[in-house]
Amino acid sequence: MKRLINDGYDVVEEMLEGYCLAHSDYVKLKDDCDRVIISKKISKEPRVRIIVGGGSGHEPAFIGYVGKDFADAAAVGNVNTSPSPEYCYEAVKAVDSGKGCLFVYGNYAGDVMNFDMGAEFAAADGIRVESVTVTDDIYSSQNIADRRGVAGDVFVFKVAASAAAKGYDLDQVKALTEKANANTYSMGVALSSCTLPVTGEVIFDMEDGDMEVGMGIHGEPGIERTKLEKADIVVSQLIAYLLKDSNIKAGDEVQLLINGLGGLALMDQYICYRKAHQLLNENGISIHKPLVGNYVTSMDMVGISISIIKIDDELKQLLDHPCDAPYFKIAY
Amino acid sequence: MKRLINDGYDVVEEMLEGYCLAHSDYVKLKDDCDRVIISKKISKEPRVRIIVGGGSGHEPAFIGYVGKDFADAAAVGNVNTSPSPEYCYEAVKAVDSGKGCLFVYGNYAGDVMNFDMGAEFAAADGIRVESVTVTDDIYSSQNIADRRGVAGDVFVFKVAASAAAKGYDLDQVKALTEKANANTYSMGVALSSCTLPVTGEVIFDMEDGDMEVGMGIHGEPGIERTKLEKADIVVSQLIAYLLKDSNIKAGDEVQLLINGLGGLALMDQYICYRKAHQLLNENGISIHKPLVGNYVTSMDMVGISISIIKIDDELKQLLDHPCDAPYFKIAY
Repeated sequence: MKRLINDGYDVVEEMLEGYCLAHSDYVKLKDDCDRVIISKKISKEPRVRIIVGGGSGHEPAFIGYVGKDFADAAAVGNVNTSPSPEYCYEAVKAVDSGKGCLFVYGNYAGDVMNFDMGAEFAAADGIRVESVTVTDDIYSSQNIADRRGVAGDVFVFKVAASAAAKGYDLDQVKALTEKANANTYSMGVALSSCTLPVTGEVIFDMEDGDMEVGMGIHGEPGIERTKLEKADIVVSQLIAYLLKDSNIKAGDEVQLLINGLGGLALMDQYICYRKAHQLLNENGISIHKPLVGNYVTSMDMVGISISIIKIDDELKQLLDHPCDAPYFKIAY
Repeated sequence: MKRLINDGYDVVEEMLEGYCLAHSDYVKLKDDCDRVIISKKISKEPRVRIIVGGGSGHEPAFIGYVGKDFADAAAVGNVNTSPSPEYCYEAVKAVDSGKGCLFVYGNYAGDVMNFDMGAEFAAADGIRVESVTVTDDIYSSQNIADRRGVAGDVFVFKVAASAAAKGYDLDQVKALTEKANANTYSMGVALSSCTLPVTGEVIFDMEDGDMEVGMGIHGEPGIERTKLEKADIVVSQLIAYLLKDSNIKAGDEVQLLINGLGGLALMDQYICYRKAHQLLNENGISIHKPLVGNYVTSMDMVGISISIIKIDDELKQLLDHPCDAPYFKIAY
């Protein structure tokens, strides 16, 4: 048990309370719902509102991306559990400004069911809500629509929020968000399981010195369990899968995210970035403003994922649009 | 072995290469010295230059704090090892603008020796260099001058850099930096050792479910090894030690940092923040712009430290001064 918590059943409430106290200039809990985080920097002018969310345990996702010109609200579930339909609906009620809302979240069955029900509740109130589910985890299915959402969330959220900030209407925001998702590819490797707060136990056992390529952020199985390889070999393997799946090729431009899963030293993440950068350059692919760090975690899981979004001028402009959230800042 | 690296002897060079590639708009390596990181956003007007540094393995410290209106350069040692006198001297040569330089670094014998020698080399070139050693780790010695520097580094660096950015002279910058250090207090708790890259082994063994309060960021021994307590109890213990040592009392204002040591889930850090916030409020102490996250780590060590700086209007203004480094941004 390498967690510093109180009762495992209280982790989400206590975390949210701590988060809102620490970032009280950015966010607050919705008055009558302790599982909806709302931006205090929401635009005064009416806009399409961006609502993100999902299970807890991926911090700083999703709460860390609620702020100015980024997500307007987050619906927060229990650890590795979808937020309830009511939370999704409450988020809409809290932030809608008459222009409709876009739900953007990772593609997991429970999330899809609950966000869809939330959208139906909102429709009954006359509020239009559309959804884009992020499907970036290339190993999770051959069928793209069935793929899970992992750290590529960050790119897709960013494009959605920037499109809304530019004043586009809901159809336009949804179309651009879908475009971002269609160009985003991720794959990860785990060296350990996370530790579940309620049980104090790992989700799965992993021998020290083993790794699993392709593993999901909730411990979903990957390709195979092997002995841990050197960073350059692991990164080469991930980049090869990503380039093959995405058809990203020489002459293309990408944004790149080396994402720590929570327990991996930042030193290692930069060592991995170095190799990813070299490999993309060797393949004639240019990198625009890379990101390195813990963006979408699995609590204390040791591992990384690599996310790539293939960009054109339209996506680049949206990805570069200024924003100010506790865990994502682009200067104005 | 829960590290994703190549040869353990290459980690620092590979990390620095990756870091400079990822943040090429902010930093570069000095041309003839691969252990000195220089800001690309250094002020055009002459100023006192702020040089930080120390051993590697504490990322994002110290390299992450080199940027615009923050540190101008960092001298980088091997893992848990001081940078050589030559690196400290090369950093001065790279950034001095005729107004002198201030070394700001944690108080460890090897660092003191090497930074002092670097300052002597600079003096032989006619460049004045002063030093402030950070001594915030309250448990490390009863004698304040002998205390180690830990995550309180961040507050002290920030004050030094802001004073330099305001155009103060070297004596003024040094005096304000000393004032910041004199008001900064830290204490940590470890649930595990870090993993050393060269050996792949931990520095010390720790039973799963144990903790050690007061442990240093290189695994220096703490007060005692006990069974892991709940977060609220651990935080209460740390805050009690900090308030007792610092004489911070009702009516005072502080800035607070809950610092993850590298392997602790961000969720847990916010749970700890919640309790620290409650306790300070209960004691009549107000909190100005708290920080939560991995600021000064011990690679993959699981644990936290709490740092408090007692502030007055002068220190508050300096702590709030705008800056833009990869791991520390305050909007302009």
